[in-house]
Amino acid sequence: MPQGRSPRTEIASSAADPGTGRIDSLIELRDALRRFAAERDWQQFHTPKNLAIALSVEASELLEHFQWLSDAESQSLDATQLARVRDEIADVLLYLVLLADRLDVDLLAAARDKLALNAKKYPADKSRGSSRKYTDL
Amino acid sequence: MPQGRSPRTEIASSAADPGTGRIDSLIELRDALRRFAAERDWQQFHTPKNLAIALSVEASELLEHFQWLSDAESQSLDATQLARVRDEIADVLLYLVLLADRLDVDLLAAARDKLALNAKKYPADKSRGSSRKYTDL
Amino acid sequence: MPQGRSPRTEIASSAADPGTGRIDSLIELRDALRRFAAERDWQQFHTPKNLAIALSVEASELLEHFQWLSDAESQSLDATQLARVRDEIADVLLYLVLLADRLDVDLLAAARDKLALNAKKYPADKSRGSSRKYTDL
Amino acid sequence: MPQGRSPRTEIASSAADPGTGRIDSLIELRDALRRFAAERDWQQFHTPKNLAIALSVEASELLEHFQWLSDAESQSLDATQLARVRDEIADVLLYLVLLADRLDVDLLAAARDKLALNAKKYPADKSRGSSRKYTDL
Repeated sequence: MPQGRSPRTEIASSAADPGTGRIDSLIELRDALRRFAAERDWQQFHTPKNLAIALSVEASELLEHFQWLSDAESQSLDATQLARVRDEIADVLLYLVLLADRLDVDLLAAARDKLALNAKKYPADKSRGSSRKYTDL
Repeated sequence: MPQGRSPRTEIASSAADPGTGRIDSLIELRDALRRFAAERDWQQFHTPKNLAIALSVEASELLEHFQWLSDAESQSLDATQLARVRDEIADVLLYLVLLADRLDVDLLAAARDKLALNAKKYPADKSRGSSRKYTDL
Repeated sequence: MPQGRSPRTEIASSAADPGTGRIDSLIELRDALRRFAAERDWQQFHTPKNLAIALSVEASELLEHFQWLSDAESQSLDATQLARVRDEIADVLLYLVLLADRLDVDLLAAARDKLALNAKKYPADKSRGSSRKYTDL
Repeated sequence: MPQGRSPRTEIASSAADPGTGRIDSLIELRDALRRFAAERDWQQFHTPKNLAIALSVEASELLEHFQWLSDAESQSLDATQLARVRDEIADVLLYLVLLADRLDVDLLAAARDKLALNAKKYPADKSRGSSRKYTDL
């Protein structure tokens, strides 16, 4: 953040901030993350292997918030817990977008394909109400 | 996939598939996942705690593909490896969207907020070329 | 395992196996793993970073067996489930011993120290019946 | 630790500590953990599912220390890094012992069986110098 700017200016320029900018889609999020990494010369650390590690670590930090909660408690988080969980969810998404970008994977296309595959593996009539893996259906 | 269908027909029917439908945004992906779970009566398993576990497990399955690769090898996956990795990336996204939906978290808003926070924690001029945690900067 | 062998014979032949040998302690397990890796020239892959990844991946494979189970179900695994879980538990221990060996960490000494630390962080009278983190006590 | 005690005294008093006691084997560690949990009435949280989550979370905290390190850097941790890593290694072992105890799994017997299985899956002559999964050998 350039020195000498007033907080107000920062907020106003936030929309135009090259580091964040408008983010209303996965594409815009990807572009913001590209700029963020480039400005810090962090691409050197962002090998697919390292990003996959970071993603896994963040997913575990998210899980940590639930580890001693009952299923019922996990459904009624208080505001503090929810804010922490939201923060970890964001971290998972950031690394997922960075990794997908690094591998030239279109996230939504990959999700579409996987959902279509799952629809075949888990036919609604055979898997209704069952948590068994499809190989056990 | 039923035999004898032309690829064109498949695409057309895929777009009309009530289980998947058009998915061009995170919102549409969320809606498709809602339908998918409802048709299978799977919402009962989708407590936030269970979804956080599933997300973490999928992130590890993704990481598994990289575990014995060098950083260089992780940057030049062959087509088979990349297809498997893409599949795992999709799984992570699916569970992330399910979990965020379950907790009423707006994924893109959460990512925006986190990126803005990171911009403050890691000023470009102090963190350039360094992988140290912000507490060590 | 060839049929018709008595358990006694199996134990005897197991003891003579150069790849495994007698394993009645963590030290003997460490030594067996050293031989196993050396015979396959696998030490080159066993950097601390890679072993930490492998450990994390195996811990997630273990967790996967519980992900859709209720707490009650997780306490009454059938024989098949238990055999799979036991197998994953073993994998976690193998990688933990390999990693500790690679870093010259004495596993039991580290566990002793951590348990002593936990005894201070979680005084019995303050933490009885509570799953809160010590910082919240 | 009270100041002014000699290391020798600390060791002696540690041996008499009802919470930890002598721990020179996995069995003694298991017994110490049983006492530790019982004194805090924590067994109620220690379902196999919750312990598997905790184990996975701790394995990720261990991995976190390596996530941005090169393989070479991961082999030359400084004293501070090593102390943190040793601490996380201990956490993984503690939860592994708790989980195995909860499921009546003998850790060393499970490790022996798995090592024998691995010896068959990865014959030394076929797997020498290769990190490929046995299914790809």
